[in-house]
Amino acid sequence: MTTLKNDIFIKALLKQPVSRTPVWMMRQAGRYLPEYRQLREQAGSFLNLCTNPELACEVTLQPLRRFDFDAAILFSDILTIPDAMGLGLYFTEHEGPKFARPLSTEQDIKNLLVPDPDEKLRYVMDAVSLIRKNLHGSVPLIGFSGSPWTLATYMIEGGSSKNFQKTKALMYEQPNLMHALLTKLADAVALYLNAQIKAGAQAVMIFDTWGGMLSTEDYLRFSLAYGEKIRSLLITEQDSQRIPSIWFTKGGGLWLESMANAGFDALGLDWQTDIHQARQRVGHQVALQGNLDPVALYASPEVITEKVTAILNNYGLGSGHVFNLGHGILPDINPDHVAALVNAVKNHQVS
Amino acid sequence: MTTLKNDIFIKALLKQPVSRTPVWMMRQAGRYLPEYRQLREQAGSFLNLCTNPELACEVTLQPLRRFDFDAAILFSDILTIPDAMGLGLYFTEHEGPKFARPLSTEQDIKNLLVPDPDEKLRYVMDAVSLIRKNLHGSVPLIGFSGSPWTLATYMIEGGSSKNFQKTKALMYEQPNLMHALLTKLADAVALYLNAQIKAGAQAVMIFDTWGGMLSTEDYLRFSLAYGEKIRSLLITEQDSQRIPSIWFTKGGGLWLESMANAGFDALGLDWQTDIHQARQRVGHQVALQGNLDPVALYASPEVITEKVTAILNNYGLGSGHVFNLGHGILPDINPDHVAALVNAVKNHQVS
Repeated sequence: MTTLKNDIFIKALLKQPVSRTPVWMMRQAGRYLPEYRQLREQAGSFLNLCTNPELACEVTLQPLRRFDFDAAILFSDILTIPDAMGLGLYFTEHEGPKFARPLSTEQDIKNLLVPDPDEKLRYVMDAVSLIRKNLHGSVPLIGFSGSPWTLATYMIEGGSSKNFQKTKALMYEQPNLMHALLTKLADAVALYLNAQIKAGAQAVMIFDTWGGMLSTEDYLRFSLAYGEKIRSLLITEQDSQRIPSIWFTKGGGLWLESMANAGFDALGLDWQTDIHQARQRVGHQVALQGNLDPVALYASPEVITEKVTAILNNYGLGSGHVFNLGHGILPDINPDHVAALVNAVKNHQVS
Repeated sequence: MTTLKNDIFIKALLKQPVSRTPVWMMRQAGRYLPEYRQLREQAGSFLNLCTNPELACEVTLQPLRRFDFDAAILFSDILTIPDAMGLGLYFTEHEGPKFARPLSTEQDIKNLLVPDPDEKLRYVMDAVSLIRKNLHGSVPLIGFSGSPWTLATYMIEGGSSKNFQKTKALMYEQPNLMHALLTKLADAVALYLNAQIKAGAQAVMIFDTWGGMLSTEDYLRFSLAYGEKIRSLLITEQDSQRIPSIWFTKGGGLWLESMANAGFDALGLDWQTDIHQARQRVGHQVALQGNLDPVALYASPEVITEKVTAILNNYGLGSGHVFNLGHGILPDINPDHVAALVNAVKNHQVS
């Protein structure tokens, strides 16, 4: 195994001393980069980029050529698991991800098989291996998955949703059936992330994009409980290296104490949550990742620098902070503004 | 002045003893009622209903004929103030509210005049007086307004928004100009609510629909600070009756302690926030209003009863709770399910 030339991202997640705060950006490989848009046009679709390991590798590496990010993240989609379960993922221009065969009956849920990641998701593992090889140990590679609750919402609604009416109807009316679905998904996510780790991922992150739409009680039972289950099944060491894990619930700032008890090494924070207060609430039980408002990247480089600095100062001294946005970068951000963010983190002197 | 036959809503807001928890529903006058849809069709548009005092009165009273709600709420729109400022409010079928003349330059903001509510918003005051008269003291009438921050988002974006890019750009790049706008809006909201109180509103509520899209620091400075300013300007007693005020930030569960210090009698809670934890955090400093997930009304009457009961038990003993949804009722809810909610509150025995 190659030793990492830059391991501050891993170290910060493990709350070990670091020379400075590491930085990466959710959706750092994506539409705000002209070279990404060009490759996507050539590939014909977003899904073609995801399913072709060479293209996924190229897209993953693009932002690292421009910016000194301290981690790479696998270019893929959060909905690969339901697709591998046979739901037929496709993308529309304006409505985002869709499933050709959403779950609509109890039998649909009972028929679902947990996919073997080395078969139907082989293309993801091939991409992970290829990216890892091409990184040449420069920075660590993050693998990821959607959370069971988040995957369930898309599988039941058939795509994006505003109110999650069908998903919540199932949860309210047939909680045991919802739990059966989430149990399968938790097993599938754990297998999937472990396969990514075996293929070369050096940290893993779970995106609970829609957990924040639940009541506190429902969040704990229907989202976080399955995060905890996955965590208990995850490989924590590979090739004698600790593999840290990150849990991110968008809109989950109310529930940080419970999340901190779920066993993950780090929590992602959305931009609404104050990082100083978050640290006070969870102590040093977990590292924290975040949390600039993605919309702040429309502001001038001067304002971006000021906002980044405020968050770094607000976190304060000590390891355990990975700088990031509070949600994915928006597609029309000027790449120069990303450079301002990265430079602000790199040049920061704790005041 | 007529003495209220049922004043448990007012009493609960003031944390005075009540025989049972009062209940009303955000958007209780609205599209889920067939009689509303019929009247709206006759009126030709939503705005015609709002601007015609007789129609606004009729729509306000419709839900009270079906359900034993403990309060009426003025039928109106949160965007009446910017419309009175000359921005030209209109509604499109699928995209919601729009402004013909959104704010786009510094001069636009400087030119804005705080509207005299007895002139350009006379139709609202006429509706309030008429509703108050037609209620015959059965239940109290709630007046309302959008919060300055929420009004500003629509005025700058020109309508609804996903990321609030223009509004946040102004906030980040020209904070003083944003403060100038919010100051005018706070003055306008205070005048508007006070005029509603003089016209007959017996409680007032401020809807901060989009405050939850801000970082903690920005929320305190750009949204809650103006709520506090309004609160300091509000009439607190009219005809020897206390006029309680309610502040509701959707997505604001992180900030309850700060809200409780802003001087309002009560806080609205979204459905994500656990009401027991909320009560522990704010003590008995304020009353709490909420907070069933509006999507739970799609579930069966049995499940609705169970969920309502759980919230009532979770709040526990003592006054200071007004039952409500955590956000407005959705337009395709079965009215029988609303009856189940109301009955569950009325029949509740604290366990």
